[in-house]
Amino acid sequence: MPESLNIIKIGGNIIDDDQKLFSFLKDFAEVPGKKILVHGGGKLATKLAERLGIQQQMIEGRRMTDAETLKIVTMVYAGYINKNIVAQLQANACNAMGVCGADANLVPATKRNHPTIDYGFAGDVNSSQLAVGSWQLFLSYGLIPVVAPITHDTKGQLLNTNADTMAQEIAKALSGHYEVTLVYSFEKNGVLLDVNDDTTVIHRLNPSYYHQLKQEQKIFAGMIPKLDNAFAAVDSGVKKVIIGKAEALQELITGMSGTSITHE
Amino acid sequence: MPESLNIIKIGGNIIDDDQKLFSFLKDFAEVPGKKILVHGGGKLATKLAERLGIQQQMIEGRRMTDAETLKIVTMVYAGYINKNIVAQLQANACNAMGVCGADANLVPATKRNHPTIDYGFAGDVNSSQLAVGSWQLFLSYGLIPVVAPITHDTKGQLLNTNADTMAQEIAKALSGHYEVTLVYSFEKNGVLLDVNDDTTVIHRLNPSYYHQLKQEQKIFAGMIPKLDNAFAAVDSGVKKVIIGKAEALQELITGMSGTSITHE
Repeated sequence: MPESLNIIKIGGNIIDDDQKLFSFLKDFAEVPGKKILVHGGGKLATKLAERLGIQQQMIEGRRMTDAETLKIVTMVYAGYINKNIVAQLQANACNAMGVCGADANLVPATKRNHPTIDYGFAGDVNSSQLAVGSWQLFLSYGLIPVVAPITHDTKGQLLNTNADTMAQEIAKALSGHYEVTLVYSFEKNGVLLDVNDDTTVIHRLNPSYYHQLKQEQKIFAGMIPKLDNAFAAVDSGVKKVIIGKAEALQELITGMSGTSITHE
Repeated sequence: MPESLNIIKIGGNIIDDDQKLFSFLKDFAEVPGKKILVHGGGKLATKLAERLGIQQQMIEGRRMTDAETLKIVTMVYAGYINKNIVAQLQANACNAMGVCGADANLVPATKRNHPTIDYGFAGDVNSSQLAVGSWQLFLSYGLIPVVAPITHDTKGQLLNTNADTMAQEIAKALSGHYEVTLVYSFEKNGVLLDVNDDTTVIHRLNPSYYHQLKQEQKIFAGMIPKLDNAFAAVDSGVKKVIIGKAEALQELITGMSGTSITHE
């Protein structure tokens, strides 16, 4: 049986709160076995852009990555946030190593090309081309990769990739070698039947139940892209996707809290 | 006989010039065998601090690393410069991986403690504690470490370390396992007998000749710290230190240009 691997993605609500981040990293350090941490950006990049007087263009709720914005996200995500997380984990006896997708060609991508919308330097991952051997090298040596959502086009250009997608692509690529559990942490307790009631967590979700809930319009529209992503992951060999609050990481990983998304 | 390892440090004059950097990285990619690139910061950090209205305090010609400055150098050195160099090298078929001293505990350090001067978050390397096993893992797999001069105190604090020192400490730590050549590139052709005449390069320098030149006051004062560092490295097992212009990297490594500093 392949060894287990937990891939945990933390969102901006943790990154932006020093106390929450500190406490999460202590919990993460204690997760046994092989693991990878993928982090998003939080509000720091937006704040730095504001201080520098750089206008942020938004496309469908996402930041448009022009050249100046790419510079900022590279500095903030791959530099400041990534290295501070690594230093904190090292202090917790967790042999973390910070990387982005350009390092060791871990996550190659292609600049998004759209007939009418200019997404700027947005990178879509080349799913079949991740350097799986390098991932295995680090994991087998006991290193804990901490991943910033910056990729590259293998021709010298850095690109900005959505952190949820980054986590999903790494999970898919490594699912042939490990039994992968992908954990998406966000600000809610899990997928909710009533978006305003944090106690209505759906504990298990499989394709047929998801289909039923969508037809009954019981799934909050904002969750649909995340859930479609999650089902795409379990369809591609990832054993389980768990969605819930990072504050209860142990319970999340063991399936005691949050929503577990499985193939059957 | 141990395998050769070239550790090459590039200075700000290359980093600050896109064309020079581009051309240097092409040359670096072609250097055969095991190699490590250590980069400094250049003027980008100073420019960003100015744009953000952060005052830079200078101590003995070096930037004082207060908390805001540490944030900036972490973003610029370990983020922007490091990842752009990695992407360029990857485009040149060189399997680069960007790291700082916190990653995999590659270069642990201690915050400088001085009775009267506050150096801020300056890190002095803990020479005996570098994670040699991780360096060997990367090198034996064919990865090319690209090193930003940011270290950590192993208690969660990032620190700023001089890039020349960083290169020297890595060279010393790995000299027990490889036959290390340490190349310091800067804006001159090498160590000069006449600082104003770039054709007066001293091709070989050993301790007794260095001593003689110092007594005759033929060594430019500004070179003395760099040379003392170089002799400290060869005294600690590094086979050779070469000082010269990065623009002629191949000739520099083969000893056809620049100044070679050896033990005998």
